[in-house]
Amino acid sequence: MSICSKNSICSDILRTHMGKLGQSDGLAPETILAAVDAGTMVVLANPAHKGVTPTLIGQPARVKVNANIGTSMLVTDVAMELEKAKLAKKAGAHALMDLSTAGDLTEIRKSILAATDLPLGTVPLYAVAQRHVAKGKDPSDFGEDEIIAEIAEQAASGVDFMTLHCGVTRRGVELAAESGRVTGIVSRGGSILGRWMRRHEAENPFLTRYDDILDLCLAHNVTISLGDGLRPGCGADAGDGAQWEEVINLGRLADRAKARGVQTMIEGPGHVPLHLVQGQIQGIKRLTGGAPLYVLGPLTTDCAPGYDHIAGAIGGAMAAYFGADFLCYLTPAEHLTLPGPDDVWAGIKASLVAAQSAETALGRPAAVARDLGMSKARADLDWEAMASFSLDPDLLHKRRAMHSKEKECAMCGALCAMRMMTGENFECPSPKDGEAK
Amino acid sequence: MSICSKNSICSDILRTHMGKLGQSDGLAPETILAAVDAGTMVVLANPAHKGVTPTLIGQPARVKVNANIGTSMLVTDVAMELEKAKLAKKAGAHALMDLSTAGDLTEIRKSILAATDLPLGTVPLYAVAQRHVAKGKDPSDFGEDEIIAEIAEQAASGVDFMTLHCGVTRRGVELAAESGRVTGIVSRGGSILGRWMRRHEAENPFLTRYDDILDLCLAHNVTISLGDGLRPGCGADAGDGAQWEEVINLGRLADRAKARGVQTMIEGPGHVPLHLVQGQIQGIKRLTGGAPLYVLGPLTTDCAPGYDHIAGAIGGAMAAYFGADFLCYLTPAEHLTLPGPDDVWAGIKASLVAAQSAETALGRPAAVARDLGMSKARADLDWEAMASFSLDPDLLHKRRAMHSKEKECAMCGALCAMRMMTGENFECPSPKDGEAK
Repeated sequence: MSICSKNSICSDILRTHMGKLGQSDGLAPETILAAVDAGTMVVLANPAHKGVTPTLIGQPARVKVNANIGTSMLVTDVAMELEKAKLAKKAGAHALMDLSTAGDLTEIRKSILAATDLPLGTVPLYAVAQRHVAKGKDPSDFGEDEIIAEIAEQAASGVDFMTLHCGVTRRGVELAAESGRVTGIVSRGGSILGRWMRRHEAENPFLTRYDDILDLCLAHNVTISLGDGLRPGCGADAGDGAQWEEVINLGRLADRAKARGVQTMIEGPGHVPLHLVQGQIQGIKRLTGGAPLYVLGPLTTDCAPGYDHIAGAIGGAMAAYFGADFLCYLTPAEHLTLPGPDDVWAGIKASLVAAQSAETALGRPAAVARDLGMSKARADLDWEAMASFSLDPDLLHKRRAMHSKEKECAMCGALCAMRMMTGENFECPSPKDGEAK
Repeated sequence: MSICSKNSICSDILRTHMGKLGQSDGLAPETILAAVDAGTMVVLANPAHKGVTPTLIGQPARVKVNANIGTSMLVTDVAMELEKAKLAKKAGAHALMDLSTAGDLTEIRKSILAATDLPLGTVPLYAVAQRHVAKGKDPSDFGEDEIIAEIAEQAASGVDFMTLHCGVTRRGVELAAESGRVTGIVSRGGSILGRWMRRHEAENPFLTRYDDILDLCLAHNVTISLGDGLRPGCGADAGDGAQWEEVINLGRLADRAKARGVQTMIEGPGHVPLHLVQGQIQGIKRLTGGAPLYVLGPLTTDCAPGYDHIAGAIGGAMAAYFGADFLCYLTPAEHLTLPGPDDVWAGIKASLVAAQSAETALGRPAAVARDLGMSKARADLDWEAMASFSLDPDLLHKRRAMHSKEKECAMCGALCAMRMMTGENFECPSPKDGEAK
């Protein structure tokens, strides 16, 4: 037992919100307390984020979905980012990350924090690097203290979780360089730190200053999401030495955080072929002491740009089935452009399909009941009930609009299998009015 | 060795087209011949279908994708069906099924046959039943001879493969009724036959007349797709006695067909939770002697209407990895309405993502090379090469249009990881013109 005894904010949050937390995740209070204490579950909530909905991530809480939003140098439209934040909540996301890299990053972050009750995550390194890029300088020109200052500022402003690439070491970067990787280092954060370490001939400042970072995160109950800066950027690179070197480091860093009472999650791949997903997830979980695992996809093929939300749903469903806890969405815009509002919606829904598929397979009661409820509604041709169990009731109604008078779906019409076996007399809808009698 | 020695059309097709077949599937002629002869692979092609592209389905041929099109009593627009047929080919489908149930079915089928070189499949029972429904009668009013006549007519007109629900028995129907299924019988064909057997108090005519059917199919090299009329219609029904009763029958029917030289495929589920996909596929393959397996999904959750192409891609990827050979697409319209052209496109692409994911995981050389080619193109920021390896080059160009001047993708812009580690001097794109230097 360690987290709660050392992190008074975390234990206060659990005490205050236990009723709602237990209800939304279908867990007993003692289950939640024990898991958070052991570091196998986190509760995302920084008290400085006004109105934040505390959110559980980790076994055996429900699988959660994160949506990334944020500006980029090539597309900077803060109003659109706020729209995406609202849409993400409506679509069913459980958390947001602001990955902005252009514009006034502090103002953008504060606007999003004010606009959403979803836990918000960031990557503080982006702000540090962008400050130098904006001046026409090298993104790795920053000093160690700038990192600490940025984390302090963001923690005080209410950021609930932060991706910090503390496990990228000089050894890891050299392993990545020497191992003949096809796509090298593909994490923005990992590559900036790789560049920094080479130019400064020094170890990763997120690692050397880890104790300072733990102090800041403890003071605000910021959950550290230990970033996977050396994650594979393509299927061919999955599972190489550089990746596992970092995972080993992340496990040790998670231990150090736990000893201080700081909550941590582990970030995972990435790009992983289907047959390696099980081994990746189980290996990462083993090496990180069962800490909550936050995966990006994984993408089970590299050649689906425009459909990466689908490739990511395939990998995400399997990852969650084998133990991943938190799915970062991928949108149809991945690898191509910044996601627009439609992409955000599509990405979240795809991740929810993956999460629901995994939870049903795991026998989680809420997911099983939802699938069963839908199936019974189908047998009854009860469209209102179907909508209530659907992952997107509005879409169901929209697609049914032209057939709203019919009981049967338009695929089978009069030959509806649901009605075929019942009744002595066949009720034959007239082709003219099409309405069920 | 049996098929080729008894089916002269099939062996002629293999002889004539072996060069192209071997090339498109990356297989040696002897591999193809042995697999077709053993009944673990089929070559879809009815010589009466002018210009048809003979297509291999079965291990170790490449995983293929089928698109269902066709009218329904509630949506009858033949021009749209022809458009969907063309679009399906463009999107990358390898076969089509015409599932029309309204309008002049013979004319619709002939129009589609004339319009496509993809192998075309049908469900002759629909035409038989619809003829009675159109007269305001019960869909099960037909006699046995009507079935034989319809199959003969369709075989002569050039249909390349037919779904025939020969394995639905009275025992299977009673098992389905008694087992407390949530959604009963959900196959249109299975439910019509169930109704027929109950009303006529007789065994399934597709089973009792199976020898006549084999004669007709042999005469035109029509591949029989042994339909799964008792497939589970929801996750909760997957794997019950009725389903396996039918699979056992299908295996025996496939043996009888092979003994006559008739090519067969087996149709599979349906709705199957993630953790049961492996067992389902392996069980069906075992019971059917490794015959080519043609799956619909399987859907790994029931509550994703509007996103069934994604739930189907999750199940389809796993199914193909465990041995399924032929993926029937599911579109975003599944369970809701007839698919429109956009749905057809989305459904095929989702199935292709699943097929590519499975083939990469299986180490199939073409799939691995495609993923690797894409990954190398990414490392080089070579967008033309990325398009060439992409499952949808047009979509890639469309989504990139506003960034076509930039080398980097708009997600990272100046902080592009692909460029971060290379070069001493950081090339900083100006935020104003955004163009890479």
